[in-house]
Amino acid sequence: MLGTILYGPRDVRCEEVPEPKIVNPTDAIIRLSATCICGSDLWPFRGLNDVKSPLAMGHEYCGIVEEVGSAVTTVRPGQFVVGSFCISDNTCPHCRFGFQSSCQQREFMTGAQAPLARVPLADGTLVATPELPPGDLIPSLLATSDVLGTGWYSADAARVRPGSTVVVVGDGAVGLMGVLAANQMGAGRVIAMSRHKTRQDLALEFGATDIVSERGDKGVARIKELTKGIGADSVLECVGTRESMTQAIQCARPGAMIGYVGVPHGVELDGQALFFSQTGMLGGPAPVRRFLPHLMDLVLGRKIEPGKVFDLTLPLADVAEGYRAMDERRAIKTLLRV
Amino acid sequence: MLGTILYGPRDVRCEEVPEPKIVNPTDAIIRLSATCICGSDLWPFRGLNDVKSPLAMGHEYCGIVEEVGSAVTTVRPGQFVVGSFCISDNTCPHCRFGFQSSCQQREFMTGAQAPLARVPLADGTLVATPELPPGDLIPSLLATSDVLGTGWYSADAARVRPGSTVVVVGDGAVGLMGVLAANQMGAGRVIAMSRHKTRQDLALEFGATDIVSERGDKGVARIKELTKGIGADSVLECVGTRESMTQAIQCARPGAMIGYVGVPHGVELDGQALFFSQTGMLGGPAPVRRFLPHLMDLVLGRKIEPGKVFDLTLPLADVAEGYRAMDERRAIKTLLRV
Repeated sequence: MLGTILYGPRDVRCEEVPEPKIVNPTDAIIRLSATCICGSDLWPFRGLNDVKSPLAMGHEYCGIVEEVGSAVTTVRPGQFVVGSFCISDNTCPHCRFGFQSSCQQREFMTGAQAPLARVPLADGTLVATPELPPGDLIPSLLATSDVLGTGWYSADAARVRPGSTVVVVGDGAVGLMGVLAANQMGAGRVIAMSRHKTRQDLALEFGATDIVSERGDKGVARIKELTKGIGADSVLECVGTRESMTQAIQCARPGAMIGYVGVPHGVELDGQALFFSQTGMLGGPAPVRRFLPHLMDLVLGRKIEPGKVFDLTLPLADVAEGYRAMDERRAIKTLLRV
Repeated sequence: MLGTILYGPRDVRCEEVPEPKIVNPTDAIIRLSATCICGSDLWPFRGLNDVKSPLAMGHEYCGIVEEVGSAVTTVRPGQFVVGSFCISDNTCPHCRFGFQSSCQQREFMTGAQAPLARVPLADGTLVATPELPPGDLIPSLLATSDVLGTGWYSADAARVRPGSTVVVVGDGAVGLMGVLAANQMGAGRVIAMSRHKTRQDLALEFGATDIVSERGDKGVARIKELTKGIGADSVLECVGTRESMTQAIQCARPGAMIGYVGVPHGVELDGQALFFSQTGMLGGPAPVRRFLPHLMDLVLGRKIEPGKVFDLTLPLADVAEGYRAMDERRAIKTLLRV
């Protein structure tokens, strides 16, 4: 079959790879309905992560169960399933605490930019739909696997409540999903920080009530102006740079929580400054599995349409162009037909 | 009257000072029933904070209202009151959000190591008891003003819940109050980290279920052992050094919250490490005013006895000895008779 392999900076190729097989009795093999490229795939693509050996890319997936290992009991061939990018058993103490992304058996999904994928710990990781979903819902169901689940976690970690004033830092796919999540959680005001017209428009479609196009000190001043000098109740930090984190902290009111889901790069926090700002922080890789059943229900009930975040669709064979389009910010997020 | 003035490192004196007067119509003058020395008073005493001019010391207080300004409506002369070390109007957006320690009109109390003290914003800051309390409750009521309120906030910020496993880092007066708070909030297990017999005994009296006397890596290993490798649901960081913060983070399970109330000195947090540890953090100066009515009720109902944290009582004239005893760790906390 075709698969996606990253050989080094900007060298990603769609090429013939072996089909995945059941390795452990807890595995499942999925025939993907669609797959996509994640913002985090751009780090190794851009050479920011060291690539020592060829990487099988892709960790967002949904599709039909093709085969299951002998120990799998909760999903069966023919079912449509979605799984998280974090493989988890969903039974260990960390999973039961709602942090499946720190599962004691955690693995990270790989190799899903392909027609078939092996999912370890299938019982813990996969959630099946009651029946096969209509084809037009596939992009939105695919989004629940990571990008929506991550945006949702940032809003959950930032403790968005009905009526909350929420600031979203970052207008990438995850930030836009954060806007959708905050809106779904009943936020009274969702302020999206974005400088790009197409992303601003999508943010408004997902429920943003205000757009702030300024950044840095000017952006913070604008947030303070919009909140009568108080600051936001919740801030969703969806970038991970020093600048974005500083901006997030400065937009927050005392006692606010920041849900940060952009993997921090070069971020050092001064303990004393954080103390006196009285800003709370919770982040990390999103425990998508916790939210998956609810998010899939919202999609199946047509309450949300996170699939709108895909603004470029390509056949798998053109995966390299999908990476380039996102790298050059010509696309927010690329869906791949398999 | 006598008052306590810090002139420079280790130079604290009890000397004649002018009696406080009403300055603003929102002020009250309190005749203190007792006062005390705070762990944070030791920073300038030890020369860790720069003392540019003589400081009127003391910010923990309770007593009888002597006089109120013309705008004060909620307390009247003759009432017994307790106030927070943070002066707050209790009406601004930050106060209404429960973060009175970031009140838009915030001031920090000073000059309370004396028989009389001026309390600004009396309506927002002071809480009166229904009637004059019996004398034996004075130490415990005094404790609610800061040390108990701060320990309580650390447990609240760390989201202690019924059944939680809680680790308390720091066996100073605040840490011991954190033990008491976690116990009151229904924690299933309260592990106090302490190397000192008298403090261990007090921790057990306040509700600790386990004592860990190891520190650093050994202390973390012991916590992991006690929690079956999982870590604590909530960690109360009541010290503020780099070592104690590291220990707190390493004792926390993924998804745990750390409530940190020791003012961080030399603490830098690596964003990426914090991200992958998935540890939540909330700290800052405690919004004691939020908890004060409840804490005073618990004391008046004899449900808790935080006043046991005072293990040295001296007349105000001997205040310098009180500082030395705490500095040399001969005393946990010194109560001053005024």
